[in-house]
Amino acid sequence: MGIEQDLERKKGLPPGSLVYVGDEVASSTKISVIDYIGDDLVEKELDKIQDVYPYTKTNSVTWVNIEGLNDIDVFKEIRDEFGIHPLLIEDILNTEHRPKINILNDYVVMILKMVWFNKEEVEIEEEQISVIIKDQTIFTIQEKEGDVLDSVRKAIRQNLGKIRNMSAGYLVYSILDAIVDQYLFESERISSDIEQLEEDMVIDPDQTVLQQIYHYKNIGMHLRKLVWPVKEIIGGLEKSKVIDMNTGFYLKDVSDHIIHVMDTVEMTRSMAANLLDVYFSSVSNKMNEVMKVLTIVSTIFIPLTFIAGIYGMNFAHMPELDEAWAYPVVWGIMIAMTLGMILFFKRKKWF
Amino acid sequence: MGIEQDLERKKGLPPGSLVYVGDEVASSTKISVIDYIGDDLVEKELDKIQDVYPYTKTNSVTWVNIEGLNDIDVFKEIRDEFGIHPLLIEDILNTEHRPKINILNDYVVMILKMVWFNKEEVEIEEEQISVIIKDQTIFTIQEKEGDVLDSVRKAIRQNLGKIRNMSAGYLVYSILDAIVDQYLFESERISSDIEQLEEDMVIDPDQTVLQQIYHYKNIGMHLRKLVWPVKEIIGGLEKSKVIDMNTGFYLKDVSDHIIHVMDTVEMTRSMAANLLDVYFSSVSNKMNEVMKVLTIVSTIFIPLTFIAGIYGMNFAHMPELDEAWAYPVVWGIMIAMTLGMILFFKRKKWF
Amino acid sequence: MGIEQDLERKKGLPPGSLVYVGDEVASSTKISVIDYIGDDLVEKELDKIQDVYPYTKTNSVTWVNIEGLNDIDVFKEIRDEFGIHPLLIEDILNTEHRPKINILNDYVVMILKMVWFNKEEVEIEEEQISVIIKDQTIFTIQEKEGDVLDSVRKAIRQNLGKIRNMSAGYLVYSILDAIVDQYLFESERISSDIEQLEEDMVIDPDQTVLQQIYHYKNIGMHLRKLVWPVKEIIGGLEKSKVIDMNTGFYLKDVSDHIIHVMDTVEMTRSMAANLLDVYFSSVSNKMNEVMKVLTIVSTIFIPLTFIAGIYGMNFAHMPELDEAWAYPVVWGIMIAMTLGMILFFKRKKWF
Amino acid sequence: MGIEQDLERKKGLPPGSLVYVGDEVASSTKISVIDYIGDDLVEKELDKIQDVYPYTKTNSVTWVNIEGLNDIDVFKEIRDEFGIHPLLIEDILNTEHRPKINILNDYVVMILKMVWFNKEEVEIEEEQISVIIKDQTIFTIQEKEGDVLDSVRKAIRQNLGKIRNMSAGYLVYSILDAIVDQYLFESERISSDIEQLEEDMVIDPDQTVLQQIYHYKNIGMHLRKLVWPVKEIIGGLEKSKVIDMNTGFYLKDVSDHIIHVMDTVEMTRSMAANLLDVYFSSVSNKMNEVMKVLTIVSTIFIPLTFIAGIYGMNFAHMPELDEAWAYPVVWGIMIAMTLGMILFFKRKKWF
Amino acid sequence: MGIEQDLERKKGLPPGSLVYVGDEVASSTKISVIDYIGDDLVEKELDKIQDVYPYTKTNSVTWVNIEGLNDIDVFKEIRDEFGIHPLLIEDILNTEHRPKINILNDYVVMILKMVWFNKEEVEIEEEQISVIIKDQTIFTIQEKEGDVLDSVRKAIRQNLGKIRNMSAGYLVYSILDAIVDQYLFESERISSDIEQLEEDMVIDPDQTVLQQIYHYKNIGMHLRKLVWPVKEIIGGLEKSKVIDMNTGFYLKDVSDHIIHVMDTVEMTRSMAANLLDVYFSSVSNKMNEVMKVLTIVSTIFIPLTFIAGIYGMNFAHMPELDEAWAYPVVWGIMIAMTLGMILFFKRKKWF
Repeated sequence: MGIEQDLERKKGLPPGSLVYVGDEVASSTKISVIDYIGDDLVEKELDKIQDVYPYTKTNSVTWVNIEGLNDIDVFKEIRDEFGIHPLLIEDILNTEHRPKINILNDYVVMILKMVWFNKEEVEIEEEQISVIIKDQTIFTIQEKEGDVLDSVRKAIRQNLGKIRNMSAGYLVYSILDAIVDQYLFESERISSDIEQLEEDMVIDPDQTVLQQIYHYKNIGMHLRKLVWPVKEIIGGLEKSKVIDMNTGFYLKDVSDHIIHVMDTVEMTRSMAANLLDVYFSSVSNKMNEVMKVLTIVSTIFIPLTFIAGIYGMNFAHMPELDEAWAYPVVWGIMIAMTLGMILFFKRKKWF
Repeated sequence: MGIEQDLERKKGLPPGSLVYVGDEVASSTKISVIDYIGDDLVEKELDKIQDVYPYTKTNSVTWVNIEGLNDIDVFKEIRDEFGIHPLLIEDILNTEHRPKINILNDYVVMILKMVWFNKEEVEIEEEQISVIIKDQTIFTIQEKEGDVLDSVRKAIRQNLGKIRNMSAGYLVYSILDAIVDQYLFESERISSDIEQLEEDMVIDPDQTVLQQIYHYKNIGMHLRKLVWPVKEIIGGLEKSKVIDMNTGFYLKDVSDHIIHVMDTVEMTRSMAANLLDVYFSSVSNKMNEVMKVLTIVSTIFIPLTFIAGIYGMNFAHMPELDEAWAYPVVWGIMIAMTLGMILFFKRKKWF
Repeated sequence: MGIEQDLERKKGLPPGSLVYVGDEVASSTKISVIDYIGDDLVEKELDKIQDVYPYTKTNSVTWVNIEGLNDIDVFKEIRDEFGIHPLLIEDILNTEHRPKINILNDYVVMILKMVWFNKEEVEIEEEQISVIIKDQTIFTIQEKEGDVLDSVRKAIRQNLGKIRNMSAGYLVYSILDAIVDQYLFESERISSDIEQLEEDMVIDPDQTVLQQIYHYKNIGMHLRKLVWPVKEIIGGLEKSKVIDMNTGFYLKDVSDHIIHVMDTVEMTRSMAANLLDVYFSSVSNKMNEVMKVLTIVSTIFIPLTFIAGIYGMNFAHMPELDEAWAYPVVWGIMIAMTLGMILFFKRKKWF
Repeated sequence: MGIEQDLERKKGLPPGSLVYVGDEVASSTKISVIDYIGDDLVEKELDKIQDVYPYTKTNSVTWVNIEGLNDIDVFKEIRDEFGIHPLLIEDILNTEHRPKINILNDYVVMILKMVWFNKEEVEIEEEQISVIIKDQTIFTIQEKEGDVLDSVRKAIRQNLGKIRNMSAGYLVYSILDAIVDQYLFESERISSDIEQLEEDMVIDPDQTVLQQIYHYKNIGMHLRKLVWPVKEIIGGLEKSKVIDMNTGFYLKDVSDHIIHVMDTVEMTRSMAANLLDVYFSSVSNKMNEVMKVLTIVSTIFIPLTFIAGIYGMNFAHMPELDEAWAYPVVWGIMIAMTLGMILFFKRKKWF
Repeated sequence: MGIEQDLERKKGLPPGSLVYVGDEVASSTKISVIDYIGDDLVEKELDKIQDVYPYTKTNSVTWVNIEGLNDIDVFKEIRDEFGIHPLLIEDILNTEHRPKINILNDYVVMILKMVWFNKEEVEIEEEQISVIIKDQTIFTIQEKEGDVLDSVRKAIRQNLGKIRNMSAGYLVYSILDAIVDQYLFESERISSDIEQLEEDMVIDPDQTVLQQIYHYKNIGMHLRKLVWPVKEIIGGLEKSKVIDMNTGFYLKDVSDHIIHVMDTVEMTRSMAANLLDVYFSSVSNKMNEVMKVLTIVSTIFIPLTFIAGIYGMNFAHMPELDEAWAYPVVWGIMIAMTLGMILFFKRKKWF
């Protein structure tokens, strides 16, 4: 529904028109800057994007974080001041976009997704995060306030590791690393959830379990769609000249991590698919059990009822009816038949 | 049926014969031209294709739109005047053709498909659109009057974006962009339809649902067939020299969009496939329910009937028949058996 | 069976031995020649292969058509006169071979298959057609008299299109085009047959339908085996120097067509696979219906029979038996139970 | 079991240790030599491998055939005399190895498998055959006495074809050709067996049929494992310099054959997979038939029994019991109900 | 669970922080060294990593084995003394990592997994083993004490093969060879276990069998994840300059072995998948058997009971009741019906 409207809204416009395409989020746009070089660190909330310009002109690394995509003017400013191509700004505002990287002469734009596994709804929530890299200035543009990058901020603030002594390329690496770690974290959670589901299912396979499997399979497909392009993005970044060369090794490391995530996602998909077979088998075993009960009861009592029926007939001449031994003998036959049946079922291992 | 006749009609002819192969559409061929450069704009309906030649000889961008493929003479004129290879004109007239691009020394021919999702019939309707690019002249040739390109016309007329200041290459890009946006729009519609279907199905899985799934899977395959070649087409366009180089970035953008469409189509296919499992499970759960009802009723009443049968027997010597307490005791036994059964089924969670 | 014998026959022989491997066909070998250049055209049936040599030594295009593979001497002559490698002649005679191309210094040998869809047996019939290209001489070698190439002959005879003014390369293209058109024609037929099958199946899914699906899936696989190599063959032809360069564009066109055929074959395979799900669902729905009837009847009448059984018991002291109102009351209870059951089934939508 | 022991035996040893890893075969190692050049031919059984050396030093082609891998000394001799790498000799002795080729400066080692389809056990039997190519000397090393190469021996002995006038490369080609022909022969046999199975199955689908399908699917996988590497091996051979160049064309021919085998194997696998669906359908159709019989009988007789039960009740006041017309009327009702049911089932096409 | 905590622990830290990520293992870190060159051999347990440095500075091959990852200081020392990149040390300590290789200017780090098939739990146990190669010094770092490398140690101690006379590259090859041999051993064990399972299953297909199949399929996926990267790792090693060139041939041999393992793993996966079909068929055959028993008993006795019911009716006027021949005749009819039914079932082959 929403998607159709979004697309409808977008479809009639010429390419490069800046319109925010995504779920309507009320919050306003929030701008903050972290500027550091060695021991010098400035961290500020800004009122308007123009306040950021002085920082971008120094040698220090400038990280501008923008939360909220509603204030189109901010993005027009960035477009004009930093010479970002209108189509790219359009892509940043369109949160339905797939992850990608655009490498231009003097800047790079990456569009990535942060993901959260919503355990209750059994679905993937995603939030777009765009990264603009121009010289020593890094813009990160998120849909709403997020916390995936908090570990990076903490490292800068507390001067952990060597981030404060490295160039903007290392900051990009740290951001990518934080996002990819989040992928891994969420995909491992999904994987362990599926294992849990398997145990639950064998005990009680009901229709809701199947719907969950269905959702897990869709999640696998969804994650695949979000994660696979990241490998290409990192590959592109490695080849671009915007990032300085000595962070290449770090990118290789993120690249290894993303392959690990891909493996985990594939594993998840395959587990969900296999789970389905266990489900169908559980259902069919329950059916088997139901049928066995029916068959055992019917097979024992229907013949007995027939015998009782025989001696309920009202024929004038049924000699055995008048014998005193007849009634106990009939009981004897019935009990013998029942025991015979039980033996038969035992031998067939139906009990 | 129709296809066989079409092919039959075509089979006997030597290659390069111009015959319109497709569904018979009565409407005549309509020609219109939009010619623009900067602020100058001419838009006209034309009677004959020859009226277009003066426009093609100026520096301005000339967009000739032809609707209807029945008037073979028009295409013979284009073939001769613009030196288009007969085999390509043949391909343009054969609407059963798959999307493709042919890049020649001084012109390019693209054959594309516009798609509409017919929700009632659960199928994809397609219309062929061919594009001939020669210098600053663009021909677009459609089967019938269409509206996918209306957004492009509007942008030209109202001077939206920068289309009026760009070369013919940008117009080609705008046309491709409009078509690809349509793909995205329709594939998202299909995708949200499948989600709807899933909800409906759990409530009431009937045979028509399965046929719908079957159609959705065929749609996925069909879309794949139409969308995949477009990536190659754009790739080919990027490498061709007919398109001027500075629209390369725009083509890259459409290329990103088409990958997004491909992802969505794959997602759709996978969802339809997964849906099938939910369907089969729903059916088998309903079967289970039916069986349980049968088993519960049979298992409770068949033994009871047997007991009633016993005391319906007419043996002369059945001592218990004459006791006053016998009838209530039999009732007691029957009620106890029934309660026991109910307990048994409760423990098995069949209720 | 036949295959085993054929292979057995072949296995013991040294490579290059000329033996006809295929179904034994009684008809003798028939040789005909069409020789043309511009307006000059000679068409003749020949008694022996040697009669063809004068034609091959002129500048005109010489098309030698050989029908029937039994007369080994003909092929020995060709081998020796035109210097064709014995292994290739062996391949031409072995009709179990897969399509392939061999490009040598001064000649090219192609082995292709013509296909017919046998609707009654639901299988693909194939006939091998080998093409030898040497300078301006083209040999086509078929298993039996065929008609796929009749359109090419007609074009030559009636001087349709430009074939009479083109070199041997264009003739090769025309032959390929006729064969590929046949592929398309047959695969479209299969595709529309499968659609028909789907409609039939929903009405009455029986075992024969499944066997048909099985055959359609095998057909898909079979066609794939025959059609896929053709793309490579055309690719090889494009690169070879035997074919003159200006037919390159025509080959590209056949190449497009073969991709279209491949798409159609894939579509066919996928439709047949999807059909299977519809079939299984139809079967399981029929089962469900059977079960429902059983359950409804049993569930209504088994409890009623029990009640009847109760009052069929012969206890001396059953007070209600003597009351005048008892019989109608029992009827009332029975009718109420029946109505209750019917309501229950209605709510479950089993009716 | 055996495999585990074999591996266990091998695991503790340093690389390059010569141990025969495979099934324990009692027969001793048999060495024979065929040496030929033009009309000269020597064929001999040898007592020890050293007797072969004089032949290897002449210009003639020397084919040494070794049957049986138990006499490790033979292989040590070959290793030392011909400078074969210990790891390669180890590979030759390890019959669990996958097919491969090793191309070294002055010799080539190929490890191939001969296959036989064991129809009774429905499995593939394989025997390793290793080929060492050094100058004009060819070693073939088999596990036991075999007959696949008998056709090659016959061609040499009887001077069939041109093998006697060709170099060692042609002998290698002839050996490969014989092995690949065997592949084709066996895979065609399997394929025709599966077709037979399909016919049997429709008549009587029992559990053994399914196990056979299971075995056929495993055979497909197994063959794939053995046949696929052969393509690479031939590719490697084509590039190596040990083989003289003018047998290149012959290798290309074997390469075509192996692709044909691969196609056949894939076809086989796909047919076995499709067969499974036919099987499941047959089973479910039989189930349907069983259910229908049960339902028809139950649905007809359970209501009738109820009616009989009604008039078996012993109520004092059942007015209809005393009427003379009552008994025939009840019969009439029963017959009418039965006819109604039969009509109902007829309309549902259950008969 | 544990994984989530591990990841949680890791997530907040800046890249390059040395934290052991894996299952908490109590044992302390154990360091041992084997130093050899020709006939000289030193083997020692060391207290601290610094004791190793004298050995690393000689020309001899130095193999340092570290068991246990808990003592972070050891790894800090290695990082600083040998100049290993902090990210790589981090990877060595993170045992959740996927196999990989990092080739730097003067050293190589490989991360590999040893695997054990746990037959009771039907799962793969893995242990990470990291290898650092720097000049003639090899570090192997394991999670716990292991025995896979004991065969290598034995070869060094007992001077088996030529390891004592080779460089460090050959040691690396020996280590890889031992690990890959372990892969093969375990995958063959799994494969023969699946074969065993198939036999068990046909006899008694219960729910636990299905869970086992599920686990085997997951094992297949898991092994794939561990084994596939090893091929790349060996490929990387072949290209690196750290390893001396004349061990290239040995690496090729391990490469062949790993392809063989990959084949076996694929075979295993495919067998497990096929097994599932056999399982479902067994279940459905058992169901069929149950249904047949029910149907046979019901179909025979329900009509008989009806007949008995007829003559249990209490109509005043039922002429046949008073005839002496009636009772035997009814018995006759019943026996005839029963025999008829049995014949019917015999003909349908239900017995």
